[in-house]
Amino acid sequence: MARHLYECPLRWSDMDAYGHVNNARFLTLYEEARVAMMFIDVPLPELKDGVVVARHEIDYLLPVGHDDAVRIETWIEEIRNSSFVVAYELFANDKLASRAKTVLVPFNLGTQRPRRVTEEERGWLSKWLEESS
Amino acid sequence: MARHLYECPLRWSDMDAYGHVNNARFLTLYEEARVAMMFIDVPLPELKDGVVVARHEIDYLLPVGHDDAVRIETWIEEIRNSSFVVAYELFANDKLASRAKTVLVPFNLGTQRPRRVTEEERGWLSKWLEESS
Amino acid sequence: MARHLYECPLRWSDMDAYGHVNNARFLTLYEEARVAMMFIDVPLPELKDGVVVARHEIDYLLPVGHDDAVRIETWIEEIRNSSFVVAYELFANDKLASRAKTVLVPFNLGTQRPRRVTEEERGWLSKWLEESS
Amino acid sequence: MARHLYECPLRWSDMDAYGHVNNARFLTLYEEARVAMMFIDVPLPELKDGVVVARHEIDYLLPVGHDDAVRIETWIEEIRNSSFVVAYELFANDKLASRAKTVLVPFNLGTQRPRRVTEEERGWLSKWLEESS
Repeated sequence: MARHLYECPLRWSDMDAYGHVNNARFLTLYEEARVAMMFIDVPLPELKDGVVVARHEIDYLLPVGHDDAVRIETWIEEIRNSSFVVAYELFANDKLASRAKTVLVPFNLGTQRPRRVTEEERGWLSKWLEESS
Repeated sequence: MARHLYECPLRWSDMDAYGHVNNARFLTLYEEARVAMMFIDVPLPELKDGVVVARHEIDYLLPVGHDDAVRIETWIEEIRNSSFVVAYELFANDKLASRAKTVLVPFNLGTQRPRRVTEEERGWLSKWLEESS
Repeated sequence: MARHLYECPLRWSDMDAYGHVNNARFLTLYEEARVAMMFIDVPLPELKDGVVVARHEIDYLLPVGHDDAVRIETWIEEIRNSSFVVAYELFANDKLASRAKTVLVPFNLGTQRPRRVTEEERGWLSKWLEESS
Repeated sequence: MARHLYECPLRWSDMDAYGHVNNARFLTLYEEARVAMMFIDVPLPELKDGVVVARHEIDYLLPVGHDDAVRIETWIEEIRNSSFVVAYELFANDKLASRAKTVLVPFNLGTQRPRRVTEEERGWLSKWLEESS
């Protein structure tokens, strides 16, 4: 039921010509939060290396400045047979500035085909499971 | 009823460690297609400069390689009172590799607040209007 | 004695918060010019895949805007025993805006060690050889 | 005589198709180290906002991996009348992996022209002055 917390360092180059963090760059920040949760902590090498992104959704609520303190909270919203949904909230100076979701598909690197979520993976992912309101 | 066509030059650096175009980078490619349609051709300076991204959705269907010929087709899916929806399809070597949508909100740069779509803008946007199937 | 010409498409996201093409991004533009010369045209697969960057030098003479027409001219400045030097000039609207040099080292992918420039490679590189003034 | 120390967070997307940190991306990492030294700590707003990059030099000694702990040490190598030189060393897992230098030119934002280094700026920069060996 916990969320994974990621303090997200911004770079000066994350800003675009409008002087705010570029909207496309948010996906890179969410990627870092996802990598921090799934690549570094995860004890399941097949999940770490064999997962493909099937879909992203991102909502932008507030502009984010280079000097803002950014924190991304990440959790698992849903576990399906052959995919699962990662959800995120991005806070800038403690204000909710963006929300996103990513659909991830486990992938068999040998056959290069999608595969089902294993029971072991389901167990690990469940630790971060939270129903979205 | 026409779609805007954008032949999208890829860069070697668009690839990530998996050797394909990075999923986050797709937003930058869609941004280029949107800029080509809305910034360069548009006769409406207020729309060109005063529009903010409220939401993106991206579906990934096929991996895209650096050597693929990429074409993005862009159109307007919906015009609401205070926002409109840009839709895209990205083709790699003539195969549909990704779809996306962007919700854009006209923005009054003076008051720094969202504003309604003007009649003139509605007219211009309608040129590219197409119902999504 | 010819220079390789590369018409360089800019992206909106190449701009930084100052509204000009970001200075770090120039290396990505030069990379594209180098890839266009060496990866696409070159008949020497070992050179294409087995070369590492040992050094870059970049001089910035004029700011480059998103709407500028950018052309990069590339040539070989020097061929040494175990490395060679690529030189570039970047023109924005036909004005020289930046110069750069890259030292490249042929690399044996099998042994993962630097190797000498072969005679065949020297022959191909010599086509683009030009003494810097 | 001190060096400015910057623990440099890497991103997954810093890697290119070779699986190492992309050589062009190093300039972005050095930019972060420079920003940390000059933008955040500096008590001289004119220097913070009015400086342009005239030249970069980067030497690449070792490939850098995504999991490496990266530290950048930054100092001032030379103070001239109308420019100064920032020098850096980048360490990956405590091994020297890259060196770089940047020539910066103070810039008068009002006249949009280069200007001389002031005495006050010379004093501040001298804190970080170190002769390169």
